[in-house]
Amino acid sequence: MTQDWLDKVSWDAQGLVPVIAQEVGSNDVLMFAWMNREALVRTVEIGEAVYYSRSRKRLWHKGEESGHVQKVHEIRLDCDEDVVLLKVTQNDGIACHTGRHSCFFQKFEGSVDAGRWTTVEPVLKDPNKIYK
Amino acid sequence: MTQDWLDKVSWDAQGLVPVIAQEVGSNDVLMFAWMNREALVRTVEIGEAVYYSRSRKRLWHKGEESGHVQKVHEIRLDCDEDVVLLKVTQNDGIACHTGRHSCFFQKFEGSVDAGRWTTVEPVLKDPNKIYK
Repeated sequence: MTQDWLDKVSWDAQGLVPVIAQEVGSNDVLMFAWMNREALVRTVEIGEAVYYSRSRKRLWHKGEESGHVQKVHEIRLDCDEDVVLLKVTQNDGIACHTGRHSCFFQKFEGSVDAGRWTTVEPVLKDPNKIYK
Repeated sequence: MTQDWLDKVSWDAQGLVPVIAQEVGSNDVLMFAWMNREALVRTVEIGEAVYYSRSRKRLWHKGEESGHVQKVHEIRLDCDEDVVLLKVTQNDGIACHTGRHSCFFQKFEGSVDAGRWTTVEPVLKDPNKIYK
């Protein structure tokens, strides 16, 4: 019985680690969030992504309201042990609270002095119908 | 002449934003780093990834020592405007300072009470030959 693997993670001053969620198959980067120790433990226990919400200051079982649960297939740690990568199946194919597949739907266009962020991914489901 | 696009990014209290680098083609997540405003401007200007090194407290043109430059094809911003995703071509196919393709080479195995991080990706180039 050892939780040495948890101590190997370099938790930051707030006790958190950044987490990237990547879709199995497409390899699309779906979202970015944070975990504390408890969130990582819960993720391992239930096999679904559990993050720590910095705004709500509590554990956040992704999909608890929306149903957009992420089934976790693999958990990776980077070379410096301070970033986690989850390989997940995204329920309904919608990770973003805006109803899009991925949170990274704004693309930079232009130049330094005339740049803009353009929305390049469609809304798959009306957020009003996701969060009733 | 406007840099409104830079103001649209939600820089954190340290003036930084987390950045995920993803390989064009494979869609592999290569690494995770940080940028300040200047790093993002330089990245747009030169078309190669320029990060902000928190340990060295200065701009870090990725590959400046190793030659493992990242050519930037696309820059994405997430829904909350506080995370950047770069789509890059990785010079030599090596993003990690350990000589591996990706920094995320440690995979979780086991259970909460008997977990471990196992190295599952090969070293492609001896780090001693990368950093002379």
